[in-house]
Amino acid sequence: MSSQTEHPTLLIPGPIEFDDAVLGSMSHFSQSHVGPPFVATFGETLTMLRKLLQSSNPASQPFIISGSGTLGWDLVAANLAERGDEVLVLHTGYFADSFADCFETYGVKATQLKAPIGDRPQLPDIEKALKEKKYKLLTVTHVDTSTGVLSEIKALSELVHRVSPETLVIVDGVCSVGCEEICFDEWKLDAVLTASQKAIGCPPGLSISMYSGRAMEVFKSRKTPPSSYFASFKNWLPIMQNYEAKKPSYFATPPTQLINALHTALTQILSGSLNERFAAHREASKRIKDTVTSYGLKQLATKPENQANGMTAMYLPNEIKAPEILPNILKRGVIFAGGLHKEIAAKYIRFGHMGVSVTDPKRDDIQKALNVLKEGLNDVGYKAGR
Amino acid sequence: MSSQTEHPTLLIPGPIEFDDAVLGSMSHFSQSHVGPPFVATFGETLTMLRKLLQSSNPASQPFIISGSGTLGWDLVAANLAERGDEVLVLHTGYFADSFADCFETYGVKATQLKAPIGDRPQLPDIEKALKEKKYKLLTVTHVDTSTGVLSEIKALSELVHRVSPETLVIVDGVCSVGCEEICFDEWKLDAVLTASQKAIGCPPGLSISMYSGRAMEVFKSRKTPPSSYFASFKNWLPIMQNYEAKKPSYFATPPTQLINALHTALTQILSGSLNERFAAHREASKRIKDTVTSYGLKQLATKPENQANGMTAMYLPNEIKAPEILPNILKRGVIFAGGLHKEIAAKYIRFGHMGVSVTDPKRDDIQKALNVLKEGLNDVGYKAGR
Repeated sequence: MSSQTEHPTLLIPGPIEFDDAVLGSMSHFSQSHVGPPFVATFGETLTMLRKLLQSSNPASQPFIISGSGTLGWDLVAANLAERGDEVLVLHTGYFADSFADCFETYGVKATQLKAPIGDRPQLPDIEKALKEKKYKLLTVTHVDTSTGVLSEIKALSELVHRVSPETLVIVDGVCSVGCEEICFDEWKLDAVLTASQKAIGCPPGLSISMYSGRAMEVFKSRKTPPSSYFASFKNWLPIMQNYEAKKPSYFATPPTQLINALHTALTQILSGSLNERFAAHREASKRIKDTVTSYGLKQLATKPENQANGMTAMYLPNEIKAPEILPNILKRGVIFAGGLHKEIAAKYIRFGHMGVSVTDPKRDDIQKALNVLKEGLNDVGYKAGR
Repeated sequence: MSSQTEHPTLLIPGPIEFDDAVLGSMSHFSQSHVGPPFVATFGETLTMLRKLLQSSNPASQPFIISGSGTLGWDLVAANLAERGDEVLVLHTGYFADSFADCFETYGVKATQLKAPIGDRPQLPDIEKALKEKKYKLLTVTHVDTSTGVLSEIKALSELVHRVSPETLVIVDGVCSVGCEEICFDEWKLDAVLTASQKAIGCPPGLSISMYSGRAMEVFKSRKTPPSSYFASFKNWLPIMQNYEAKKPSYFATPPTQLINALHTALTQILSGSLNERFAAHREASKRIKDTVTSYGLKQLATKPENQANGMTAMYLPNEIKAPEILPNILKRGVIFAGGLHKEIAAKYIRFGHMGVSVTDPKRDDIQKALNVLKEGLNDVGYKAGR
């Protein structure tokens, strides 16, 4: 039984439901950020992040910084790109527009390669774009939280390394790290950015990222200094290296309680098999997608291969709008998210299925949510599954 | 009795010891960042921040952002200054050097006005500097955590408004907000930056700040766009205004648990009299400073009027170094901090006395720390108070 106060089951694409032990770590007694116990915790957390991303290359560099997932974009734009550089942003939803906006803020020219809503840019089109112009970076949103579209990272990275080997491969993994397979070394990725509150299962407030040795070399050979202070690798790199070597170090006070909670979450994840974890998310996702399809609902992500495994974005029946169905579902004890893609926001809802709601056999969150969705649809006049 | 696991009493200048209820709020069950309950919590927290800083002017604008205190410098440098602008940085320790470094990162020219270690720049010298050149901003560290030097904000702001009325008055209040008097409106301040983990008594992970209507006008009349994405008012202003109006809004996922904890901490602080809170810190500080003086220890801050009320930085006897005495004190159940001012780091230690350690009558932290300091000094061969 959970020790948490009774509350509606939170099944949005992050923040997700948290494990009792992770939440317990959030109320850890106060520790000095430079004292040996916390230094050990932080150092171990950085090392566990390598394991989560399946990286054993010592040149890879993890960063865990107080901030939201959004800060990860500044880390890339301010450290790996320079004013005037060209970057290619693959667009599968809202978050590509924002990443491009972040680049432009730093004077970096972002070209977006877009797909229709629910689809993803195709490899031949990406190949063509990479051959037309030299890009310093290519960015891809592994799972776009606004649409539930999944990108194919492995094949994409192979393509980039074949066609434009100097282009760094940057993966926005905010809604994928912890539930979708990522092999950082094997797939030759240069950066994976994420946040704490999605499939990793730790409360929000941490920008979490990993960079390849190659990316760190690009940083070190910059012609101009990084164009941010709080997001500067110049300031953070020695801190991360020192903490992982169990040496205290100071640039800014780390969020000690959140890092204790992340330590607990990563310890839990790594105590089992990562492949089994990814498989559990795929299985739950298939069950959810089959069931909502049987209700007559269509997904934004058009094809099975581009459907995320940690969330489902689904169109509502024409006559129903999100502001009508969501309160009905909440009344039954489940919180889903509304739409985020501006053009169609009221026409769809999002169901997040990551972390303990999927992996903890003591929880019945997924079945409850599927039942509640059906009842809610029936209640507002749509006969689900008839 | 505290419900926290037994642990050494943390008396460094932040993070501080936390109240049980505040730590309890850190393990709040997961909430949607755009759902009505959390939107209400966040909105109320922003409004309480106005009260903490004694601002009733609706043009003042509070910001609460996932990040550390350091992020506050980027907020100022990226939004209130533009490339090529001149700023005057008053130096009372480590944190002025860092704030100046932050300005330079953004292409803003920072002139530092320095005082000898333990002192602060004097008003006539500041007046002279302001008359020699036109500065867009003047920054002052209210309490420099590296030295325990207190700056005089009220008289300084009067001077700036008299001599250089267009210069914005920026107060780094990381180690002062919650324990030193600040009257944002009455003193005509333009910005106060702080963090959660010091005298406010909430775990680390929040950049907290307040800007005057005048500062927001300077932002709005920029010739160039803000030069950061994560630290941009353009991105955050609508979010803060919407949350305070109890409307959900999205730029980046807020750290929901930390904001619940800040809500609890501010509710506790504002349930009493702010003036009594400041007086309690002054009284505890006087008792500590009198006692360590009776032990024969000298403070870095040379004069009573420039000694902070939430911390004491004290030189060790010549024959004792910080790495020798601190473990001895820890063995007795108290954590003090070592020195941070590079030139003299091993020669002094820092004792933080903020928040519940001072205000909670059920705690005996201060007397315990004073006893332990005396015992520790005696133990390493210095006869304290003889």
